[in-house]
Amino acid sequence: MSRCIKKADQAGLAVTTVRSSNHFGIAGYYAMMALPEDMIGVSLTNSRPLVAPTYGLRPVIGTNPIAVAIPAGEEPPYVLDMATSIVPIGKISVYDKAGQQIPAGWGINEQGALTHEPAEVIHGGALLPLGGPAELRGYKGYGLSLMVDLLSGVLAGAAFGEGVSNPSQPERADVGHFFAAIKIENFRPLAQFKADMDDYIQALKRTPKLPGQDRIYIHGEKEFERTEKYLREGIPLMAEVVESLQKAGDEVGVPFDLEPLD
Amino acid sequence: MSRCIKKADQAGLAVTTVRSSNHFGIAGYYAMMALPEDMIGVSLTNSRPLVAPTYGLRPVIGTNPIAVAIPAGEEPPYVLDMATSIVPIGKISVYDKAGQQIPAGWGINEQGALTHEPAEVIHGGALLPLGGPAELRGYKGYGLSLMVDLLSGVLAGAAFGEGVSNPSQPERADVGHFFAAIKIENFRPLAQFKADMDDYIQALKRTPKLPGQDRIYIHGEKEFERTEKYLREGIPLMAEVVESLQKAGDEVGVPFDLEPLD
Repeated sequence: MSRCIKKADQAGLAVTTVRSSNHFGIAGYYAMMALPEDMIGVSLTNSRPLVAPTYGLRPVIGTNPIAVAIPAGEEPPYVLDMATSIVPIGKISVYDKAGQQIPAGWGINEQGALTHEPAEVIHGGALLPLGGPAELRGYKGYGLSLMVDLLSGVLAGAAFGEGVSNPSQPERADVGHFFAAIKIENFRPLAQFKADMDDYIQALKRTPKLPGQDRIYIHGEKEFERTEKYLREGIPLMAEVVESLQKAGDEVGVPFDLEPLD
Repeated sequence: MSRCIKKADQAGLAVTTVRSSNHFGIAGYYAMMALPEDMIGVSLTNSRPLVAPTYGLRPVIGTNPIAVAIPAGEEPPYVLDMATSIVPIGKISVYDKAGQQIPAGWGINEQGALTHEPAEVIHGGALLPLGGPAELRGYKGYGLSLMVDLLSGVLAGAAFGEGVSNPSQPERADVGHFFAAIKIENFRPLAQFKADMDDYIQALKRTPKLPGQDRIYIHGEKEFERTEKYLREGIPLMAEVVESLQKAGDEVGVPFDLEPLD
């Protein structure tokens, strides 16, 4: 992404791809690297197969996230960072660890039926693409997931589809990424662009709300607010996560100390 | 898009934007212009407000389609052409004209409740973004819709959000578009890319199917098959559409003759 931004600064626009890679962490992190440069940042990656395509019974495509960051003026930037499945597998694991049922629609079991049991999705089942069933246009989520894999896997010359390995396994995962940066000034005067961004964001927030709702969110906004809160108050961890970290620490002789909150 | 392709041929990559525009027809048409040049084509446009953002009660954002075309070798190309709402407004109109109810989830009525009545969505209601309710991640569809408007409206210096007029009205609509073209050869040898595309498409089709399903589709495939069928057999029209065309023809003194099928 650094090289992409440097090239975009010269050319107005750049795309870089990465192959032979591994889990790259937070998709939005790379897209947001474009923001201080007054550029639009895009970051895509493929990932190991966890999602069933529409009418498919088995996971053969990744949760392949899309991240797009666009700067505003006074308002916080727009930062979309989304799995192209309804939820990422980590969300299913959180429900599993917490012993809770998942809402119907997030995933299917080994027989292809919608399930409330997170363990059934994880073991032999599959996540569903954004949109869910065909009637509600889940094939669009499948199409976005495939697009991400074609751009970050096939275009990069990395693994794709079922060929992408689990980065936590010892073999080479060969994950592929796609980064893009667009220099806004090459399209419009920056001040005008940022003023329009602020106007748009403020107009969206003035939209009349559904009964019982008092706020329209812009993408990234909740996360910016949470960052501030966690910097103040610390990051809450589930008891099971703390235990597994302490156990891992014990095994390698590294003490795991939780700093108590004030 | 023609200029975009010409620039990408020289630079490896190009983005062009359009402002002061109108309804641009089929998004996929422009993306597919890149295919004979062995490029990846992207075409986005904003559109008049028809979609409610997540937690919103009123339509303030367009159905803002995303079209991406990627060439393959022996297989037909991948052509995604999707509204970022669950369905476009035209689909609601088809149900309305046919006197049929719509599936729950496609749209809300004036009070913000999900409705089966297409007329309630059209008059005072709103379409829902891809994903539907927040629990099933409709804010991702809302985020994609907003992304399209930020790239094709705000970046282009065109109208955006509620400022986009209905192209069928006499005032200036000021619709904005975003086109991109990526020259594949600048990333990978073309033959390798196309071979991988074919392998991926064939692997997807071999995915075990849900009970009762016998086929996994690639995006654009149904439309290519329909094109061949309609070229052979003619294009079916709803009786109401034929009547409205005959009436419009009568009004301006142009005969509307249907050529009977063989």
